[in-house]
Amino acid sequence: MSDNDAQPGSYVEAGEFKRDTNYITTRITADGRDGYPVEAGRYRLVAARACPWANRTLIVRRLLGLEDAISLGLCGPTHDQRSWTFDLDPGGVDPVLGYERLQQAYFARIPDYPRGITVPAIVDVPTKAVVTNDYAQITLDFSTEWTAFHRDGAPDLYPEDRRDEIDEVAELIFRDVNNGVYRCGFAGSQEAYESAYDRLFARLDWLTGRLRGQRYLVGDTITEADVRLFTTLARFDAVYHGHFKCNRHKLSELDVLWAYARDLFHTPGFGDTTDFVQIKQHYYVVHTDINPTKIVPAGPDLSNWWEPHHREQLGGRPFGDGTPPGPPRQAEQVPAEHWLPPQAS
Amino acid sequence: MSDNDAQPGSYVEAGEFKRDTNYITTRITADGRDGYPVEAGRYRLVAARACPWANRTLIVRRLLGLEDAISLGLCGPTHDQRSWTFDLDPGGVDPVLGYERLQQAYFARIPDYPRGITVPAIVDVPTKAVVTNDYAQITLDFSTEWTAFHRDGAPDLYPEDRRDEIDEVAELIFRDVNNGVYRCGFAGSQEAYESAYDRLFARLDWLTGRLRGQRYLVGDTITEADVRLFTTLARFDAVYHGHFKCNRHKLSELDVLWAYARDLFHTPGFGDTTDFVQIKQHYYVVHTDINPTKIVPAGPDLSNWWEPHHREQLGGRPFGDGTPPGPPRQAEQVPAEHWLPPQAS
Repeated sequence: MSDNDAQPGSYVEAGEFKRDTNYITTRITADGRDGYPVEAGRYRLVAARACPWANRTLIVRRLLGLEDAISLGLCGPTHDQRSWTFDLDPGGVDPVLGYERLQQAYFARIPDYPRGITVPAIVDVPTKAVVTNDYAQITLDFSTEWTAFHRDGAPDLYPEDRRDEIDEVAELIFRDVNNGVYRCGFAGSQEAYESAYDRLFARLDWLTGRLRGQRYLVGDTITEADVRLFTTLARFDAVYHGHFKCNRHKLSELDVLWAYARDLFHTPGFGDTTDFVQIKQHYYVVHTDINPTKIVPAGPDLSNWWEPHHREQLGGRPFGDGTPPGPPRQAEQVPAEHWLPPQAS
Repeated sequence: MSDNDAQPGSYVEAGEFKRDTNYITTRITADGRDGYPVEAGRYRLVAARACPWANRTLIVRRLLGLEDAISLGLCGPTHDQRSWTFDLDPGGVDPVLGYERLQQAYFARIPDYPRGITVPAIVDVPTKAVVTNDYAQITLDFSTEWTAFHRDGAPDLYPEDRRDEIDEVAELIFRDVNNGVYRCGFAGSQEAYESAYDRLFARLDWLTGRLRGQRYLVGDTITEADVRLFTTLARFDAVYHGHFKCNRHKLSELDVLWAYARDLFHTPGFGDTTDFVQIKQHYYVVHTDINPTKIVPAGPDLSNWWEPHHREQLGGRPFGDGTPPGPPRQAEQVPAEHWLPPQAS
């Protein structure tokens, strides 16, 4: 097992891309049983807009209104071999942690931490040490452990009576879609690539069937499952189609999924946390093993994300008994020119 | 100036892709003024289905019915650093020339020939030496010098009263489209890439305007200009969109050009000389500087080439006063599974 420079926390084995799924699994909980109790102002979420796994946390934090309780540090899109840095901040230093590199927070927790330095990570501000980088658990804990700090009208993204179904759908989406696109892009053999490609598009076809007459993946409101699918779909035409050779069709050629993705994109919390410029820079600049020139494509034309989706006709209540979040706070807005708002298209 | 291994006869200078346009310009003419008179059975066209410049000669030879007069040798799609080989032939040897490598025919003409070993090339069979590799002149000479051997009903692809217009359009298409896609794909800097990308799509938009109400590029019949545009459009979604980052849109998203390309594809001589499998293998396997993994994308779904184009509504007479050619001869057929005929889609 050798670490893959381009993808911290992954490696290629017998031609197949493997994701190292050993994370720091300490949890921040209401009862504080792992030593890290839920507490407003104590933790800092470190994310990168480029990263689909981190993008999930940005969406859920915003949907639930956790901005006041959990502060946000953002790494730039183009990390080096030692991984993510705070190069977007003045002086290249995170203003709360005083770090230049996210690696420092990992080392503060586990000296010489041997695995990938990944985002998202939640850092305990008093000790400046990573608490967890277990991205799949982080968003679930935002929904279930941080309830005391949810905004009024926060949606229930992980409703108790739907958890089995959400988990089941999310597992298939992880294997074939979220991670499936990486298995296409980093395949070490033609055979491994084609196997991943077939599974990816078979799963997208399956999702098309599921979403044809139903507005969201599970039930008639947005859930964690939709968040998880969205961050991959948002990167599909911009990156995965060309860079990872996920090219049977563009997402924009798959009518049902494309309308579903746009529906979410137009929903507060989704499109407004998506930064297409950083997304493209990240993949095309960091992965020199598959794009040695580091040239970032000028396309595709992404203004089509703003076209009407007509999914309201399927009914559904996006936020269930809750309400949409207000606009993103000033300091956390994606620059307008990265977000392609309607007036720019 | 250093030769580019991946692209024989090209180099990168100050970040920009440059095509070495110094060809062997000897001509085969009716009057034989360069020492090579038009003569049935004397010359062998060496081409590769993968190559857009060579594809032109396959189309024109077939449209004009020159198969009996000029024999055909085909190189495989995946040449090595020393360029094109006859690896598709039994024993890896061209049965007429007895060569394994096209390079041998160049050396027979000019020992230690210093420039790119390119297809198409016309070889004089008695001396086994290349006469010319000047691809732009080869097809014009097929039309104007080989008239004694044209089939009955051969179209006039280079009508005298339209030559200025054909030359003018072809020059813009060469600069911005035929060669423009290479300037995108082999750009040595972000700036050079973006400049080529802008010119490419501006020219495609210009061509869209020209072709919106007019069936062919010049006049109302197929001409040399259409042949030249077609071979780039045929490779656009299969290769240039992803591999060369020509990705503002897929060709299939540009309605007018896409219908125009399909109209030609459905015309005998165009689609039936197009081998999508060889095209994809060539670019993705040979250009290791931009695709080091050599993995060939499984997509895109190309069955859409067979959808109706409705361009007949614009009128026009594809072959003018002539007629379409009959089916390709058995030995020269693209394998059905490479050609995606209607029953396979």
